[in-house]
Amino acid sequence: MQRTSLANAITLAGAATGLLLVGAQAQAQETFEWKMVTSWPKNFPGVGQGPERLAELVDQMSDGRLTIEVFGAGQLVPGFEVFDAVSEGTAELGHSASYYWKGKAPAAQFFAAVPFGMNAQEMNAWLHYGGGLELWNELYEPFGVDVMAAGASGVQMGGWYNEEINSVDDLDGLKMRMPGLGGEVMNRMGVAIVNMPGGEIFTSLQSGAIDATEWIGPYNDLAFGLHQAADYYYYPGWHEPTVMFEAIVNDEAMASLPDDLQAILRTAIRDVNADVLDEYTARNNDALETLINEHDVELRRLPDDVLAQAKEHSADVVAELAESSEMAGKIYESYRAFQEKVENYHAISEQAYYNARNPEGDTTSAE
Amino acid sequence: MQRTSLANAITLAGAATGLLLVGAQAQAQETFEWKMVTSWPKNFPGVGQGPERLAELVDQMSDGRLTIEVFGAGQLVPGFEVFDAVSEGTAELGHSASYYWKGKAPAAQFFAAVPFGMNAQEMNAWLHYGGGLELWNELYEPFGVDVMAAGASGVQMGGWYNEEINSVDDLDGLKMRMPGLGGEVMNRMGVAIVNMPGGEIFTSLQSGAIDATEWIGPYNDLAFGLHQAADYYYYPGWHEPTVMFEAIVNDEAMASLPDDLQAILRTAIRDVNADVLDEYTARNNDALETLINEHDVELRRLPDDVLAQAKEHSADVVAELAESSEMAGKIYESYRAFQEKVENYHAISEQAYYNARNPEGDTTSAE
Repeated sequence: MQRTSLANAITLAGAATGLLLVGAQAQAQETFEWKMVTSWPKNFPGVGQGPERLAELVDQMSDGRLTIEVFGAGQLVPGFEVFDAVSEGTAELGHSASYYWKGKAPAAQFFAAVPFGMNAQEMNAWLHYGGGLELWNELYEPFGVDVMAAGASGVQMGGWYNEEINSVDDLDGLKMRMPGLGGEVMNRMGVAIVNMPGGEIFTSLQSGAIDATEWIGPYNDLAFGLHQAADYYYYPGWHEPTVMFEAIVNDEAMASLPDDLQAILRTAIRDVNADVLDEYTARNNDALETLINEHDVELRRLPDDVLAQAKEHSADVVAELAESSEMAGKIYESYRAFQEKVENYHAISEQAYYNARNPEGDTTSAE
Repeated sequence: MQRTSLANAITLAGAATGLLLVGAQAQAQETFEWKMVTSWPKNFPGVGQGPERLAELVDQMSDGRLTIEVFGAGQLVPGFEVFDAVSEGTAELGHSASYYWKGKAPAAQFFAAVPFGMNAQEMNAWLHYGGGLELWNELYEPFGVDVMAAGASGVQMGGWYNEEINSVDDLDGLKMRMPGLGGEVMNRMGVAIVNMPGGEIFTSLQSGAIDATEWIGPYNDLAFGLHQAADYYYYPGWHEPTVMFEAIVNDEAMASLPDDLQAILRTAIRDVNADVLDEYTARNNDALETLINEHDVELRRLPDDVLAQAKEHSADVVAELAESSEMAGKIYESYRAFQEKVENYHAISEQAYYNARNPEGDTTSAE
């Protein structure tokens, strides 16, 4: 079961000079101290746990040869400068979400969240067995950055509203915080989109500067206290069927690692990718129950006409993104083709199963 | 970014004897050669890829210090003797599914597949953030075996039938191969359950010795050629909302590994756990299209009354399993409580999203 190479080592020692032995041992003990910048507050629930877990796994597996210091947003660089920091080598590693980089590469949005697009299980299949990850790396290659999926939120919530939405007409003129492609879709349904960092959402909603917002899901939304600023909580999050989070690595830093540490880093990221979704899946319902039972939040399904119009506008918005560059078109084609197939299969597997198990769907908010 | 300990090593060399250096180096190079037995044919599509990936990742991350030789079913021990082989130390590692061990521990079935139970995303959340994995290890502890989740199939298909099923009455008197709790449920709907290893299914179905069978999903079913022996392919697989596969480790072998190799092994298994589901999710639809378009398979949804009655009987069968031992009752309580919560949340997230994205559901087999 186990074989020590003591005998071999002794033979080697007999033949070798002291200097050779010192050299071999020095090689084996080469250590690396890395910095990881993130777009989340340090130790933030859910997504902020991923980077901490990553650092711990890598430390254990490498026996301390690769250590990673995790920085929350603003501690080393601001949350929205994570990509630049890793690209320039200020930090070797980053944890973020690709839609924040749409100013540099609009097509990056395909890898974070696509309205009426793929959910977490589907995204992971596309990334790892459908060519998605190769395209994501091709997109980031000019920036000197390697990328891997590093967590998923699952289907998000539709958002917080300070008044009831009974039809598309009720959206007209609302001011809402919803970033990315989903915000563009809402805009086409009459909503004025306001952009702001996460830290300003609560105050803006409470003061009436905005009428509605989306954030992530019950686990994070409860932690932000959004129920204190709006009464109605809508589902489902058609605009973000999951957010995929990303781990980005400076490619020169990656290349400086010996092969075993590269494998350790990649495998730890793949672990974190699954683990973050597991945590959200386990904790969202507890938070939802707290919101409904302790804070009297009104849970509502978005009206059919809102969902139907959002779906139509989403197809347009995504197709327009595909036309923004050759690379965007190439990614769109791969994404669209994979979604069509996996959606067909999930219609008879995951979706059909959910509906067979629970034919009534949501009963929490039954009128 | 990087700090070699060459200077330290040279200082050490000056102070140390040659023997000390040899000892330190021998320690660092201690290697382990393990055997992994599995319940699948070597390199079987999907589930059989998991063990191969595991061996490769561990080899890379440990720089060859832990190597794993993978054996297909019957190569070292038969597929159904994997648990005994790992328990007794014949092999250090195994890859299988826990429902095969119901003869030793009936409660093991909770960790593989529960009719109308949790799907892959939900099972992973329960195992890793709901106490499930601790219970699974408590169940296996008397056998000297550690366990981790090591792959998921996703929602399976309902099965192959050589005649059309239009109501529960059509099930009466059929002979079907369906193992585990699902088989017990079918039995209560008038089906005679026949047990047989995977390798005998095709011949039995073709010869008429059985009228129906379930196996896994399109990707594996196509490889088995089941479409050549039956015309109708039913969904959804209410009896197996996923199968969770397992990696089992002899606990003395695990304890013999240094901490870094233990962490490497555990993280590699967690990677494989996600990767197997990604592969199934990506490949099932291609296989389904081949079955429908090239082999004229008739895809059918199980009738409402079959699904409704199967759901009622499933609740009974699972509750009876819970009464089989104190440990089974404890696992059932944890499983049931977690499912109730996650099902409520998924009603407004994953399920509501699938239905908003694709309100028609399956259109492949529309009449």
